Formats: sequence, structure tokens, C-alpha cells
Amino acid sequence: MRGEIISVGTELLLGQIVNTNAKYLSERLALLGIDIYFHTNVGDNEERLKQCLKIAYERSELIITTGGLGPTVDDITKETIASFLNLPLVESEEAKQEIINFFERIGQKPTENNFKQALFPAGSKILPNKNGTAPGFILEKEGKIFVVLPGPPSELIPMFEEHVYPYLKRFTSETIKSRVLKIFGLGESKVEEMVRPLLQGSNPTVAPLVGDGYVTLRITAKGKEEEVHEMISQVEKKIREILGDYIYAVDDEEMEKIVIKLLQKRGFTLATAESCTGGLLAKKITDVPGASKVFNLGVVTYSNEAKEKVLGVKKSTLDVHGAVSPETAKEMAENVRVLAKSDLGLSTTGIAGPSGGSPEKPVGLVYVGFATPEKTYVKKLMLSGNRDRIRTRSILHAFDMVRRYLEGRQID
Amino acid sequence: MRGEIISVGTELLLGQIVNTNAKYLSERLALLGIDIYFHTNVGDNEERLKQCLKIAYERSELIITTGGLGPTVDDITKETIASFLNLPLVESEEAKQEIINFFERIGQKPTENNFKQALFPAGSKILPNKNGTAPGFILEKEGKIFVVLPGPPSELIPMFEEHVYPYLKRFTSETIKSRVLKIFGLGESKVEEMVRPLLQGSNPTVAPLVGDGYVTLRITAKGKEEEVHEMISQVEKKIREILGDYIYAVDDEEMEKIVIKLLQKRGFTLATAESCTGGLLAKKITDVPGASKVFNLGVVTYSNEAKEKVLGVKKSTLDVHGAVSPETAKEMAENVRVLAKSDLGLSTTGIAGPSGGSPEKPVGLVYVGFATPEKTYVKKLMLSGNRDRIRTRSILHAFDMVRRYLEGRQID
Repeated sequence: MRGEIISVGTELLLGQIVNTNAKYLSERLALLGIDIYFHTNVGDNEERLKQCLKIAYERSELIITTGGLGPTVDDITKETIASFLNLPLVESEEAKQEIINFFERIGQKPTENNFKQALFPAGSKILPNKNGTAPGFILEKEGKIFVVLPGPPSELIPMFEEHVYPYLKRFTSETIKSRVLKIFGLGESKVEEMVRPLLQGSNPTVAPLVGDGYVTLRITAKGKEEEVHEMISQVEKKIREILGDYIYAVDDEEMEKIVIKLLQKRGFTLATAESCTGGLLAKKITDVPGASKVFNLGVVTYSNEAKEKVLGVKKSTLDVHGAVSPETAKEMAENVRVLAKSDLGLSTTGIAGPSGGSPEKPVGLVYVGFATPEKTYVKKLMLSGNRDRIRTRSILHAFDMVRRYLEGRQID
Repeated sequence: MRGEIISVGTELLLGQIVNTNAKYLSERLALLGIDIYFHTNVGDNEERLKQCLKIAYERSELIITTGGLGPTVDDITKETIASFLNLPLVESEEAKQEIINFFERIGQKPTENNFKQALFPAGSKILPNKNGTAPGFILEKEGKIFVVLPGPPSELIPMFEEHVYPYLKRFTSETIKSRVLKIFGLGESKVEEMVRPLLQGSNPTVAPLVGDGYVTLRITAKGKEEEVHEMISQVEKKIREILGDYIYAVDDEEMEKIVIKLLQKRGFTLATAESCTGGLLAKKITDVPGASKVFNLGVVTYSNEAKEKVLGVKKSTLDVHGAVSPETAKEMAENVRVLAKSDLGLSTTGIAGPSGGSPEKPVGLVYVGFATPEKTYVKKLMLSGNRDRIRTRSILHAFDMVRRYLEGRQID
């Protein structure tokens, strides 16, 4: 099946936003073995959009559009497709009710405009939108398939995953499957050096990629549905023999999710005391639904006074060693553990920049404290990059200590 | 002048990279008043690239291509353009020498392939590449202009700035400038309804767009460099008369940055007590460098016990009204203000989902508490969407209360 993607929105042509939708969809469609031959961006302009639809119709079987489904007069994708295919727009009772429900839920009143979003070209299969008011739709006509999706990624992605991916899966026989191994604590070139012989294979392929603070190896196998899983597992086993406990997660599992899972499995609770990471540690933990079972307290002490008063860090520690010191990191972790009556306490204190550094304590110096029932560990980090990068890296190091502890691995 | 951009590279169609070049070029060309009507991504395939060139040639005067200028057999952009225009490829002595020099500089030897990069369609004006081995070129033919640029942004951007921007500037006398107004507390269709007459204008244009929890209006004016600023300001004034304090920021300023700036300006400090937002509020505040001047304490109390013990929320409040209640939000905000000795206290408590909801307290119910020296406000929110969305929206509502207070606006 030959496909192409048409993204509608003048903001794309003005360079106000980058088209991540086309990337996302292409990546997912590649997994289904669907060849995408063209991406086109066009403005909210009926004549030019129709021109693009005509070109696409002549050369592709699958035409996916993104954007232009909103309630405003600018939004013309649906109307233009209907007119291009000579189909009337028909109101969907169900979609209309959904819009009424949506506005009831958020305690607002829909305007007349909003009901425009309940109209669809006759014969459409409507795709509900859980995260907005613009439903999408699929339309089959004369051997062509139109898939019409909303522009905001937060609406497009769930709609694609829930409705479009399963729909398109029926059209393909060969499967491409990937598994990603996530590695923490080794640089990309080190990982590459260690697994070099495995990088030569052609099916499965193994490809290294740098993530945000971690490294990944992606194993990709092509073949029959029942074979690819085993093909991947064999390569994975070899990689695990080489990299061992540097591998912390598979696919899109995040470090914090791994840690929460391990805490739940082991029946442990965790509390956090943050300085330089400023709430990011707590935020990452509570990103995970159900975190409240293993996490009940996080404290962000962004001044010496708060460290003393709320966490009970000794004044002498702060005076003698400073807020950014192994001693302070240790007390923060130990004291928050006691304050929360939790099994584990995790702390960060450091200099995230861009200013605040000194020759002795430069930007990027961070101490992570980790208090357990048996012992308190302190890890010193020297991180590079901007504020955001330093904070993100600090979090990963902190979580990795907890992971290693809960998995019974070596921590330092 | 009507233009379009064709980006060549199979990696774009596989979704391995996102096309930032098209965004970059469009943004720069908009400033020159050049209308870009289409972006096309196509693979490293001669037939399909030729198809795209043909379509572009028929509808545009300016055709910019990116990518496909490398030394490998995959790279076919130059050859395809030459063949499409029936022009021979001619070797440039100068470009050949540049390639030899480049390899000398990096201490390597060029291969035969590399000299492919010294060939250009006859009549080209060659654009040197300081950051790689692939020169670009400009070709004028039959009233059409081809601008051919390399794919890596680190090569494309300097080449565009140094050679292409000045070249194109000669064709235009006009500038396009934009200003974005960010609006919180009104839906897109409501905003559109309120400013409808202004949306009809053609210069400046005003276009609404939905952001992540907010709405924007982009004012875009076209004209002489010295006029566009005033044209924008006049429309902005009219919009501000209608939308007033719903406008919270201009261009790419974030809500948290606005709040931190206002706190600094007014000499106020803020402390946070979070339940459902789990640290996101503190994290957003500390994202801003220098936040420590106005923020010294954030507490994430993720259990009733922590709310009682660390924040001193009364047991009776929790027992009678529950953790998700206006009463708890109020005590959290007031108590963290006292604990931190700050001027302002901000709290969140709610049900972010996906589970934990009940008929009386459904997922999406959030209370924001805001304690000031004069009074404590509590705002009830009914939010829709997933966990992430509910948390992000809660934060915006919380910050907006602080903003309104510090700007002396009405809060509830």
C-alpha cells in the first residue's frame, strides 16, 4: 500500500511550528510495512488543499491528512475533502452529543461553531476524540482510503493508536517489529564498542541511538508475525550478556516507571528532598499513575532556611560544608526518610546554573543522597550542559541508585 | 514571489527525523515577504523527485530544495534537477579545490565519490559550504529560481544566511512581522467569537490557534520595515480592548516566567503545597533561572498523613471534607505560606486520574488554593483529558491566579 501525508495549517508554512505529526505517523506506518512516499504541508486554503488532494489521489492509495478540523472558519479540511469527493456533509447525532458532553464536563457552553465539528462527509467512519472536540474520520472510496486526523499531537496520537493503527493493520502481511533496550551509565561510543559485532547483522538489525541522558539499542526484525518475536529475543539475550545491569528498561518504559514498579513489587516506600532539581524528582514519580502507593512526601527546599526548618538539616552542616555538599545531601535524604516514615529517602543538591557556580563548586556539580534502612549513599556528579540537562541527568542518576538497590545490584 | 520547499531524504519519510529545515527556511522567508505555499518531503528517488519538481515548476517561481547533495550514490538531488532542466553537469575547478582543501584540513584523503560534489548544472551560481563538503547552488531559468541547499542544518543555516537571504532580499521590498498574544481562561471558539471582526482583515491578519491549555492570536503584518511594527501595535491595542486581562503573555513567554517576573518586580515570595500536581508546580517555577529569589519551599503531600504532619492540615478537615475539597486546598495554601514565611501560598488538590474518581469527585476535579496576606481564594476546576493534561491545566490555572493577583486584576 502506497501512502502519503498531507498536513494542513498555515502556521506550518510560516515556520511557526515544526511538523512532528508527519514524523510520528511515518514512523508508525513504517512498522506496518506501509510505504509513505510523500509528505505535503499546505495552508488553510481551499484551492491549494484541493490541488494537493488531487495530486495525492492520483498517486497514492492511502491519504492521511492532519489538521484543519477545529471549530473556526479557518478550519476547512473536512469541507474541502467532502467537496473534492462530491460528498455531502452529514451531521452525526453521536458526535453532536459528544460535543455537548465535553462542554458539560468542562462547565462551559458550546458555541454554534463547535457543532460544525459534528459534520462529516457521508459514509465516514467517525473516530472519537477523547482529548478535544474535533473527531477524525476514515473514508473509503473507489479503492482509496482517506484518514483524517486533528492537528494537535495530544489529540492525534491517541486517536491514531486507538483507531487508525488497528484499522490499517488488516491491510498488511509482513511485520516489522522493534525492541528498544535502554542503557544508563555508559556513553554511546562505549556501548557501540562493546556490542560492535552485533551491529553488523542485517535481520535483525541493531542500531544505537542517544537518548536524553541515556543510550538505546534498537533491535528490528522483519518477517512473519510468529517469527519476529523469537528473532528479537535471541539478539536481546546476547546484548544482555554483554551489558548486564546497565540495561534498565525496554521500549518506552521510563526510568521512573521502572522504579515505581520495583517499589511496588518490593513493598517499599520512597520520599524525596530536592534542592537543585526543584520538584522534578517528585513530578517524575507522580507522573506514574498509582504512585501514591509508594510515594507520600516530597519536599523542595530551595533555601538554607527551608532545609533547616522543614527538613531539619543541621545549621552547622550548612555553615561548614554548604548547601551543595555530600554532608547536606546525606542529611536531606536521611531526614526526609524519617519525616515521611518511608523506607527510602532520596535527595539532590547542586548547582544547575546558568549562574551560581564558583571555582570550587562549578555549575554541574550535584550530590545525590540515598538513605536506606541499612546505609546512606552519596553520589557526586559532574554534569555538563544547560540547566534543563543538568536537572534531567541528576534525576536519572538518583533513580538509577534506587533501581540498583531494589534489584540487589551494586550501587556505587 | 510564490515559493515552495522540497526536502529530499528517505529518512524523512521513514519518520527517523523531523523536518526542521522547512520550518527554519519558512520562518526566514516570511520575514522577506515571500509566500511559501507548499512544503514537500520526498525520498531519495529520481522518479518521484522529478514528479515533485514538475509540480513545483508549474505553480511556483521560487523552488528551494534541501538534502541529497552528499557524496554517496543515494544523493541524487543535483543530478535530478540537471536532468529535469535538461542541463549538463559541469565541474567547477574552484569547488574541486575546496574539497581538496577541506580534506587536507581534517587530515583525510577524499575518495572519487567526493569529487561528485564539484559538479553543478551549467549556469549555476555556486554557494560555498564552510561546514561540510556539499556546496549548494542557485540557478535561474525561464523566470524560475532554484535554490539548492544541503540537508544538515549545521550546513544549511550558515549557507542560507550568508548567501541565500541576501540574494532573495533583492526581490522583495516588504517585510512580514508577527506578534503572538497568549490568552488564558477562554476557549478558542469563545476567543474567535469575541474578536471575529478582526479576523477578517487581510493586512494585518489575525489568526487564532490552540496551545497546550491556552489560546493564541497571531497578528501578522506585511509592509515596509518601518511600518509593520505600528500596524501590529494598532491591532494589538484593539484586541487588548476586547480581551483585556485574559491576555497573559506575548510571543513565546511562558506563564511561569511571567509569574516569576511579577514576583520579582513586586518583591513577593511564593511557596507551594501540591497534591494532585505532584511537584509539577515547583518544577515549573524552578525551571526559571533565578527562581530561588522568590521561591524557597515547595511541598508535595501525596497522602493524608503527609498533609497533616508536614503541612498541618487539620485531621477533622480531611475526615469531614476529604483531601479533595475546597477546605483542604485552603488549609494547604494558608499553611505552606506560614511554614515558608512567604507572602503567597499556592496549593492544588484533585483527582488527576486515570483512576481514583467517584461520582461525587470525578477524575478532573481539582481545587486550587491561593493564600495572600489579605484573603485566601479557592478555585474549583473540572478538567478533561488524561492525567498529564489535567495536571498541566491545573498548573496554568494556579499560576494565572497568582498573575492576576500581582497585576491587581480580578481573581475569581
